[in-house]
Amino acid sequence: MYKYSFQNDYSEEEHPRILDALMASNLDQELGYGEDRFCLEAADRILQAAGNPEADVHFVSGGTQANLTMLGSFLRPFESVIAVESGHISVHEAGSIEQTGHKINIVSGQDGKVTAPEIESMAASHGDEHMVKPRVVFISHSSEVGTIYSAREFKEISETCKRLNLYLYLDGARLGSALASSKADIDLPGICRLVDAFYIGGTKNGALLGEALVINNPALKTDFRYSIKQRGALLSKGRLLGIQFNELFRDNLFFELARNANLMAEKLTDGIRGLGYTFFTDSPTNQIFPILPDNVIEKMSRIYRFYVWKKVTAEKSAVRLVTSWATNSAAVVDFLNDLGEITNK
Amino acid sequence: MYKYSFQNDYSEEEHPRILDALMASNLDQELGYGEDRFCLEAADRILQAAGNPEADVHFVSGGTQANLTMLGSFLRPFESVIAVESGHISVHEAGSIEQTGHKINIVSGQDGKVTAPEIESMAASHGDEHMVKPRVVFISHSSEVGTIYSAREFKEISETCKRLNLYLYLDGARLGSALASSKADIDLPGICRLVDAFYIGGTKNGALLGEALVINNPALKTDFRYSIKQRGALLSKGRLLGIQFNELFRDNLFFELARNANLMAEKLTDGIRGLGYTFFTDSPTNQIFPILPDNVIEKMSRIYRFYVWKKVTAEKSAVRLVTSWATNSAAVVDFLNDLGEITNK
Amino acid sequence: MYKYSFQNDYSEEEHPRILDALMASNLDQELGYGEDRFCLEAADRILQAAGNPEADVHFVSGGTQANLTMLGSFLRPFESVIAVESGHISVHEAGSIEQTGHKINIVSGQDGKVTAPEIESMAASHGDEHMVKPRVVFISHSSEVGTIYSAREFKEISETCKRLNLYLYLDGARLGSALASSKADIDLPGICRLVDAFYIGGTKNGALLGEALVINNPALKTDFRYSIKQRGALLSKGRLLGIQFNELFRDNLFFELARNANLMAEKLTDGIRGLGYTFFTDSPTNQIFPILPDNVIEKMSRIYRFYVWKKVTAEKSAVRLVTSWATNSAAVVDFLNDLGEITNK
Amino acid sequence: MYKYSFQNDYSEEEHPRILDALMASNLDQELGYGEDRFCLEAADRILQAAGNPEADVHFVSGGTQANLTMLGSFLRPFESVIAVESGHISVHEAGSIEQTGHKINIVSGQDGKVTAPEIESMAASHGDEHMVKPRVVFISHSSEVGTIYSAREFKEISETCKRLNLYLYLDGARLGSALASSKADIDLPGICRLVDAFYIGGTKNGALLGEALVINNPALKTDFRYSIKQRGALLSKGRLLGIQFNELFRDNLFFELARNANLMAEKLTDGIRGLGYTFFTDSPTNQIFPILPDNVIEKMSRIYRFYVWKKVTAEKSAVRLVTSWATNSAAVVDFLNDLGEITNK
Repeated sequence: MYKYSFQNDYSEEEHPRILDALMASNLDQELGYGEDRFCLEAADRILQAAGNPEADVHFVSGGTQANLTMLGSFLRPFESVIAVESGHISVHEAGSIEQTGHKINIVSGQDGKVTAPEIESMAASHGDEHMVKPRVVFISHSSEVGTIYSAREFKEISETCKRLNLYLYLDGARLGSALASSKADIDLPGICRLVDAFYIGGTKNGALLGEALVINNPALKTDFRYSIKQRGALLSKGRLLGIQFNELFRDNLFFELARNANLMAEKLTDGIRGLGYTFFTDSPTNQIFPILPDNVIEKMSRIYRFYVWKKVTAEKSAVRLVTSWATNSAAVVDFLNDLGEITNK
Repeated sequence: MYKYSFQNDYSEEEHPRILDALMASNLDQELGYGEDRFCLEAADRILQAAGNPEADVHFVSGGTQANLTMLGSFLRPFESVIAVESGHISVHEAGSIEQTGHKINIVSGQDGKVTAPEIESMAASHGDEHMVKPRVVFISHSSEVGTIYSAREFKEISETCKRLNLYLYLDGARLGSALASSKADIDLPGICRLVDAFYIGGTKNGALLGEALVINNPALKTDFRYSIKQRGALLSKGRLLGIQFNELFRDNLFFELARNANLMAEKLTDGIRGLGYTFFTDSPTNQIFPILPDNVIEKMSRIYRFYVWKKVTAEKSAVRLVTSWATNSAAVVDFLNDLGEITNK
Repeated sequence: MYKYSFQNDYSEEEHPRILDALMASNLDQELGYGEDRFCLEAADRILQAAGNPEADVHFVSGGTQANLTMLGSFLRPFESVIAVESGHISVHEAGSIEQTGHKINIVSGQDGKVTAPEIESMAASHGDEHMVKPRVVFISHSSEVGTIYSAREFKEISETCKRLNLYLYLDGARLGSALASSKADIDLPGICRLVDAFYIGGTKNGALLGEALVINNPALKTDFRYSIKQRGALLSKGRLLGIQFNELFRDNLFFELARNANLMAEKLTDGIRGLGYTFFTDSPTNQIFPILPDNVIEKMSRIYRFYVWKKVTAEKSAVRLVTSWATNSAAVVDFLNDLGEITNK
Repeated sequence: MYKYSFQNDYSEEEHPRILDALMASNLDQELGYGEDRFCLEAADRILQAAGNPEADVHFVSGGTQANLTMLGSFLRPFESVIAVESGHISVHEAGSIEQTGHKINIVSGQDGKVTAPEIESMAASHGDEHMVKPRVVFISHSSEVGTIYSAREFKEISETCKRLNLYLYLDGARLGSALASSKADIDLPGICRLVDAFYIGGTKNGALLGEALVINNPALKTDFRYSIKQRGALLSKGRLLGIQFNELFRDNLFFELARNANLMAEKLTDGIRGLGYTFFTDSPTNQIFPILPDNVIEKMSRIYRFYVWKKVTAEKSAVRLVTSWATNSAAVVDFLNDLGEITNK
């Protein structure tokens, strides 16, 4: 009934090459719990792509699971995480970080991103045992509003963290789109040098499910598999994740898929801007946030699936349009045509 | 070396009448774990004072313990607490609520107090299982900045909570001072009718230690002693708490002590205002927040103990002065004389 | 290098019919988080098979996740779970139940199964708030040593639980094999009438991953999706689980696959017994535990993968052989031939 | 109505010298949160008595609180505690250790004490991330059944722990009685050299409330005050604990009080043995467990308060008699007379 869904980047299953790889190995007997040859091979490919052969790689099913397993492992009970107000862990993970026992210290951020001065100031305001002890800075690249950190911002934040004895952790649910952005001025090895741990999102970039966890800081590696198991995140058929990441990181498939998502988002952006609309954030990735009149939104939402993000004025709201590895030009053209028509009526 | 400490209301031990009561029963053999005759008698007196004979009363050692034991017992894992930014649980309990697994949803508040529209709005913005489910509203009376809720505010908040299926919980660390305030227009039975659970602070109003927990809502009473024990809050010699509250709620001692604290705070306020100073909040209780020039603060802080609360302008800060059941006029007069002298130099 | 692995029932990926179903829907756009049409259809099929149209069905990725999400949701902080010593949650889930805050009260059991008198006695020994409060009885069907509960045992346990106000929870990681056992005298609807909640294992019976959670007791249903999300168990592409269970519960595939596993286990059992060996437990399901001389084990373990379960005498040990939906007669024949040869050397 | 209570060692309040010390300082203004001069002085005295000037000392209100705060601070989420079946944390702390997220690995023990081979064996059976990782050995001195560890046992356990990379933690709720026992062959400095952390019980040895925590291992000291605060164990009027321990460790009062308790227990033991009775354990401390006919127990329990510990035969049970710093010879003589009379009737 809907022409197309721009609601998210997980509306389809998986890229055909991944499905092929699953089929090819279907009846092979492999070791369980991520100790199979595919997981080993995938980890190698990821370490090569990330430029840190000394890092540890683990695979889990989803983003909330990745965040709670890593942060729950890295922190002592009274230590906290600094995150931006709109951060995924701040809002959309049902209090999973708090359920592992840790407070999130919220900062306002700028364009959906944590800033170095905010980290500085949050740390400065926590000085004794009556308050939590900030220990991790949580950033998302790209952010919840589609923005990305520049190389300079990464460097400032990383230096601030080092100086203040804070770990820097990156949620990479949409890392592919961020890295493949035409505005990106820092690559995966560059990021990998600056953060203590991060994860690479597969679910939102062509995999059926799966996130690859990369731990750079040796202090955070110890006994991490215990945490994976204890949080219910250790899959019996772990190969399922290995096979997918092995394929994603072969021949740059991961980056190609992200580029398609970004390209489709750019086309949407250009088209919508061409109709005279402005945007809630200046997003160079696969989530864009045009501001539309509420009556236009109402009509478009009968034809396309997407989220209404935020009321902006009495008569206008920002909507969120998400493209993916699977989005094709035809869907974009349709959307723009329909928007044009409804706009000009 | 200091003439006097206005740093807090727990600088002295306990009111002499309480010490007498402890001495009188010292070698009597009593049952442990709060099942002694003193605890029973104290509970009766409290229920009478609160006007709800059906409520349950329990005793624990301190305020953080009271909050974490009650909230940790009342909430399911994914449920959250709405509290004001400056709330004690939001800042000064070292993440103890999060350690019990629960997120605190922060509102800005007004004069240190949660407002009904903020509750409304926080609840409205939480609608599905991707977010926590707000379930308790946490208020402090008096608040961290000395302010108190009016009867009208209590009523609005209580009605909002009932309508939205939220429990209303009151942190009464300084409930004595709030109730005894000359500006108070709601009494203990009035409050008790509107909240689901609260605690009456003894530590900051004449006891050696101890808070009395009152649970009005029958749904929250079940198996509460298990929570007390599990959180390490069940004292072997529970009589220690019973004896003290028994004394505090005999002959209105509790309210008399609070009145003394308030009276001393009023004298300080009048004197400081007389010197031409303004205040950070308009506090009718035993914590006051005059705004003083930093050089005056520097000089006064060599003579008196108190906290510098907050930078207000480049050259001025608010300080916190706290009076207690033990504060006497002489200390107040000294402080005002010294402040006058330093001000006029 | 190994002829075959009898190490577990998750060495292969998934049944071809499931793979076909995944392929068929691959590029369809569906709603996320288990709200797609496949999950709805799969839930319907499961409810029909279980004979309780009023139950709630949810899907998660694995067994540890299923257990921790359900038990973590059902229990108040001081409530505990009664389980047998060899139970999966007692030993092999890395303390995940304790991580959600709950003690496991261990009973010795008989043949790997909890007995009604043990439940009775455990409950009787817990009477006040100094101890935890037992609230759930955890059973596995089949058990960790391959045994199954009879209809009479189910009834006794269920009645004991009801009388003592305990929930009865069933871990069905290998429920398929238990139900399809030639010794089973209780079917899925029969079980469903007696337990408050359970899960149906997909991972170990033909699925790529996935367990179907069934909650019968209305008191346990409320807000359960919040728990799934908070524990990191809510998959974005939830359809992945729906598609698989939809296929497993179409045309009895689930039971056929389990029957194959059991049949292969029976053949192994008969053959091994024919060679004069005895068994550690009398298992009518897909896990069998022959007792072999250590030197025979040593030789066989160079040709086949399997776990050595337990030292039985100075020179003999029990090994665990697991068959699955994918095990074929040829592998069984090979194993028996090789065992015969090594035995008779 | 009862002549005397042998139910526990916390039936009275506090030793008069402690009460005097509280009175003497009652109106002095002191710093809060254990940073007052009494806490500092008490810590010094304790370190001197323990023979380790480098250790850290902290004070909390009770034993369950001491255990959960220390173990909750020392362990990573998936790490566990080895304890004996009858251990206080195993049974009588309402699952508080599990509530902090940690499994307790139960060993059978001998005479209520953990043995070195059991530690060895428990560690050996935990080898991968599917199980918890044992990290702390928990012992009580004296144990729940009144027994004490010999110097040789302490040494064996400590060496086993060191070899296996386990921390050794001692619950000293009744450490006074253990140290003052006529059978003790290890003193406080001797113990202090062998354990990583322990606590010295005040509540059960003359204090109104309070336990002194001693952390020897530098790795366990970091940020410990955050844990105290977060668990609700940081008293505003921390001086209350300092004053008491300052007094207990002045002029050997702590040991004198324990000696009185032990002496009274010995008199009881001798007298009961003289009446022909045997004992459930051979206790050289202030808890003794005579085995009496149930009809004798029934009659005695109308005159004296005490716990019936355990059914021993169809007609006999062990009871627990506890003496304290406050028990006097007259009560012991009365008890023995009455028991003699009832026995010989």
